[in-house]
Amino acid sequence: MILINGAPDDKLPITDRGLLYGDGLFETIAVSAGAALNFEAHLVRLSRGCRRLGIAAPAHHLLRAEASQVIGTCPRGVLKIIITRGLGGRGYRPDPQLAATRILMLQPAPDYLPANRVHGIVAGICHTRIVAQPELAGIKHLNRLPQVLARGEPDQQAFSESLMLDSHGKALAGTMSNLFTLRANTLLTPPLASAGVAGTVRQAILEMAPGLGWNTLIEELSIADLYAADEVFLSNSLIGIWPLRAIQDRILNVGNKAAILLKHLINNGVVPP
Amino acid sequence: MILINGAPDDKLPITDRGLLYGDGLFETIAVSAGAALNFEAHLVRLSRGCRRLGIAAPAHHLLRAEASQVIGTCPRGVLKIIITRGLGGRGYRPDPQLAATRILMLQPAPDYLPANRVHGIVAGICHTRIVAQPELAGIKHLNRLPQVLARGEPDQQAFSESLMLDSHGKALAGTMSNLFTLRANTLLTPPLASAGVAGTVRQAILEMAPGLGWNTLIEELSIADLYAADEVFLSNSLIGIWPLRAIQDRILNVGNKAAILLKHLINNGVVPP
Repeated sequence: MILINGAPDDKLPITDRGLLYGDGLFETIAVSAGAALNFEAHLVRLSRGCRRLGIAAPAHHLLRAEASQVIGTCPRGVLKIIITRGLGGRGYRPDPQLAATRILMLQPAPDYLPANRVHGIVAGICHTRIVAQPELAGIKHLNRLPQVLARGEPDQQAFSESLMLDSHGKALAGTMSNLFTLRANTLLTPPLASAGVAGTVRQAILEMAPGLGWNTLIEELSIADLYAADEVFLSNSLIGIWPLRAIQDRILNVGNKAAILLKHLINNGVVPP
Repeated sequence: MILINGAPDDKLPITDRGLLYGDGLFETIAVSAGAALNFEAHLVRLSRGCRRLGIAAPAHHLLRAEASQVIGTCPRGVLKIIITRGLGGRGYRPDPQLAATRILMLQPAPDYLPANRVHGIVAGICHTRIVAQPELAGIKHLNRLPQVLARGEPDQQAFSESLMLDSHGKALAGTMSNLFTLRANTLLTPPLASAGVAGTVRQAILEMAPGLGWNTLIEELSIADLYAADEVFLSNSLIGIWPLRAIQDRILNVGNKAAILLKHLINNGVVPP
């Protein structure tokens, strides 16, 4: 089922600015045991993104009610929310009076291999970079061509996920995930002030780390830093955590802390079991 | 009238990648005296963009036939063509088998002031930059949030068009137009290898210049270069040419060469009279 502005529908007017300019944002939320996981964090990020783009943010109670309706009795899947600036207006100039478009839909759960969580994955490194654009940094907006091109690079087809570098060649994130390393008892993840998406699971991990006895550090990570780390892993709402056991043909250390973290995320209802 | 994949419709499935990721491109074509102006150049750019993004480019004869159908007997307006990678697929990874979505629609001609062409405009300078992403440079793709944010900046609301700088602070383009200067008898415009849109009118101007006795030079332009030029102007398919008579509160030289060029563009059917 898909709801557009509260009504069942599966099509959007061509004049919606979400299509014309990618003028909007989205959330991808795991549904497990019939519940949208970590839903408040997604709603908060959505509202923050709307505020930064000058899009009228829908009320949370409305999104909660519509999410329940869309999820219905489905035990497991993915709830996708898309908010666009709304219909029309001539040219790029955003009309501050536009009513935002609100789309909620339920998709099947992805068929990721359970082994990815347990044994880790081999990640590629994309040629396509994530470039610095501070106005858009952190926001899960609809301008995703760099990620599409990165994921489509011929060299990346063998990998479950691939790393993207920033303009300076630092490892910033996966195409669909945030990046972490563990070094002794310090958890590191790159800053997102210039580029990247501020993941809800990334946030949860940073909040959870002190309770697990780990310091946290927001710091740029070179590929060499990844090679030298005790553990390297990727996170998002659907995968939970995937340890990296190699980057291309370079074998990485694998430890047990990523697994500990994943268990905590599952137990706290942040990611699906 | 709107045609989607050849059939009259005005709505697109939510699962189209054009909406989900801005995964597509577009053309904005002036219609004058019932004809799509400079249509071949737009078709060529569209196909080139499709090729670079790995999107199956629609056949030109199909687009020509559908354009005629959409324009019908309308004497004046704007033909917009949107091509997206097509429906669905999970996640960013582009499925090479997808059938592209093809949208053609007719919009009213914009109500730009005729005086803009004759007396020139005052342009602002946006805070939002156009950042370097070579994979997307030159392509008129659907990821237009930087232009939307630039056009929406409170300081820019008084201006008919505003300049955008690249990451190094060079003047790259207007939010919806290409940028030119004239210095003695040399026509200069910034390179678009890293960022920006390769305008069809820009191309026509570069091809036309030698016949008018002007050399052409693709060269980065600083704001100081604009201040020092004999003439500065902006181009696109709908505006034709708008000379700049000032950048914010700085008065610029105004000459008669932009007017000569505009006349040639009109006479050659590149832009509407």
